[in-house]
Amino acid sequence: MTAPYSATIRNTFAPPVMEARRWLAQATLPEDKPLLNVSQAAPVDPPPEPLRQAMSQAILEHPQAHLYGPVLGNLDLREALAAKNSTVYGGDIRTEQIAITAGCNEAFAATISSIAQAGDEIILPCPWYFNHKMWLDMQGITARPLATDDTLLPDPRHATALIGPKTRAIVLVTPNNPGGAEYPAALLRDFLDLARAHGLALLIDETYRDFHSVDGAPHDLFTDPDWHDTLIQLYSFSKAYRLTGHRVGAIVASQERLAEVEKFLDTVTISPPQTGQIGALYGLRALDDWLAGERQEILSRRQRILDRMTGLNGWHLHGCGAYFAYVRHPFDMPSPELARRLVSDAGILLLPGTMFMPDSHADANKQLRIAFANVDAGGIDRLFDRLSALDYRWR
Amino acid sequence: MTAPYSATIRNTFAPPVMEARRWLAQATLPEDKPLLNVSQAAPVDPPPEPLRQAMSQAILEHPQAHLYGPVLGNLDLREALAAKNSTVYGGDIRTEQIAITAGCNEAFAATISSIAQAGDEIILPCPWYFNHKMWLDMQGITARPLATDDTLLPDPRHATALIGPKTRAIVLVTPNNPGGAEYPAALLRDFLDLARAHGLALLIDETYRDFHSVDGAPHDLFTDPDWHDTLIQLYSFSKAYRLTGHRVGAIVASQERLAEVEKFLDTVTISPPQTGQIGALYGLRALDDWLAGERQEILSRRQRILDRMTGLNGWHLHGCGAYFAYVRHPFDMPSPELARRLVSDAGILLLPGTMFMPDSHADANKQLRIAFANVDAGGIDRLFDRLSALDYRWR
Repeated sequence: MTAPYSATIRNTFAPPVMEARRWLAQATLPEDKPLLNVSQAAPVDPPPEPLRQAMSQAILEHPQAHLYGPVLGNLDLREALAAKNSTVYGGDIRTEQIAITAGCNEAFAATISSIAQAGDEIILPCPWYFNHKMWLDMQGITARPLATDDTLLPDPRHATALIGPKTRAIVLVTPNNPGGAEYPAALLRDFLDLARAHGLALLIDETYRDFHSVDGAPHDLFTDPDWHDTLIQLYSFSKAYRLTGHRVGAIVASQERLAEVEKFLDTVTISPPQTGQIGALYGLRALDDWLAGERQEILSRRQRILDRMTGLNGWHLHGCGAYFAYVRHPFDMPSPELARRLVSDAGILLLPGTMFMPDSHADANKQLRIAFANVDAGGIDRLFDRLSALDYRWR
Repeated sequence: MTAPYSATIRNTFAPPVMEARRWLAQATLPEDKPLLNVSQAAPVDPPPEPLRQAMSQAILEHPQAHLYGPVLGNLDLREALAAKNSTVYGGDIRTEQIAITAGCNEAFAATISSIAQAGDEIILPCPWYFNHKMWLDMQGITARPLATDDTLLPDPRHATALIGPKTRAIVLVTPNNPGGAEYPAALLRDFLDLARAHGLALLIDETYRDFHSVDGAPHDLFTDPDWHDTLIQLYSFSKAYRLTGHRVGAIVASQERLAEVEKFLDTVTISPPQTGQIGALYGLRALDDWLAGERQEILSRRQRILDRMTGLNGWHLHGCGAYFAYVRHPFDMPSPELARRLVSDAGILLLPGTMFMPDSHADANKQLRIAFANVDAGGIDRLFDRLSALDYRWR
């Protein structure tokens, strides 16, 4: 007989990014259209030279760089992030309220496991980040989809209607993946009040916060002296410092919560990878100015998208921020089929709306995500030129 | 109101190694007895210079070293491990049957999640590796303890008696953590037959296989052409190449199984850390001779333990192999209390049996684990001298 499979994992969909990579491998690209890969939210350039030097030197010279560290992360990095967050958000965030993780996906998984278990429910605005949905599916936790408006913002009143006896948390991502929406500070405050009133956790994934279009703090939730009774923030160093291959993220939560999270992290990865922690620490200490420049570049690309969208007939822009534009296409074709054809016909790799919501959702086949962080102004122009050309063939 | 906690995580015990670190932080060490830390199974010396150079150079020169890789690991590393395993075990292990993970704990977690879910049961020999038990607890999977004999070997007939309608897998660790026992090849074959007959998965965690006292293949399970219908092997590069801080392990399983495992890995860590993969690949390609020397050193320390145990009155050695000696102490004192007193009275940090089995187990308070890989022959002598001295005070 053959070894069994759990039904929960069988019923979890396959990794969308790997599926997109397979499309690419199977397609013949048009000769005159070099690939524009707007499928994955990841920097492709290496980190700045001094950061690479810092990691490289530690590997050669510091024995500690090769050893297990504390489960919740190296103390120096936790201290540095606590200090930075306290400054950015104008709140009181202590070192003991920071955990370092092997990337922000692990931060989500560990946090959810501290909150909920099989049979519980968690509210996710729709479209969602696919790995969030996958983790809930794998854990036997029901994701309750929360509708969003035309600009991809959810309404706390709609969330209230979804809260039942099994609800344990609300998860928000801002700036949003996949939608690009930046949640207004007042909206986040309303969700904090709502979660607290119902005894729920409020998770805010701020992976893309360093590319927020608002100068200064994107919200004031950490100025609430009791923030830690309800709020949990997730963060990634991967986008800010180009460390995706090194796996380093963070959780900001109560010390009591982190004592539970520590059990998960110990059991899954023991301690975060050292090289990534060394790079992240260097970034926090030395790369504020460099990061500010990176943000300006992303914001200029965002503006280019906004400018070009106005000339794209029949298309509609739902959201645009941080790394993402989220659009409605004008074609009579399901979005996965369109996405596959875009590879071979237009040399464009992007992800269809079906990867961010249930297939049954009315909008799933009409929407596409464009992850534009790796495409400069010229690339964005080529992208829109190609999309405009398609317009004539398929409408 | 305050955000909720899942009952499963609340009911999971805290990480034992972190608890031991706290004992150390709280204790005053004896002035004449510098610490002998035999608590954690981790090399403390850095990897060999050429391996560090390989990692360091990749960080400076290879942009790919900073980017997400494939979820199941870099192709070159998967190929190299498939080739090495095929040679070591004399079987047919293909690249598609290898997944690289962020350490062997993640390999276990991902594999278990592909097999079982909340409400299922898995059989673990007792004493067990604590992180295995913690993961099952966190997932709401019941660990069924399988008794072992005086040499810490389990009996397949006892396992048969534990199999019920909810049983999904049997997990074996060889060489064993915490017990040091090396499972004979014939015993492993019996377990494979048993698992297959009942449609269970057989997981064999061979994290410490590079330090096995038997020359050549430690078992012949991979020579079975149908091994992949039942067998799943877990491996760690951390011990062989001193890469604990870089998080790199592996799963050997059917391609179909790995398609499910890929969902877990994508959701939790996206891809394994690149630096660790680069180091592991260097190790596989260039460090066979060096590793053979490492193994001889560990085997000589093991022999020193065997020699010194014979002179330790009232103590009993249950198992000794790879990094571990697992012993019964002669004192009228629960093992956690003894372990704490050993820090301040004897400058010895080790873990008590209660960390490897239910507190209610008859042996839990009588047993201790000694992780001796970081203590050279002189250190082993000092360790046993100190244990002998205790003999007079507390018996």
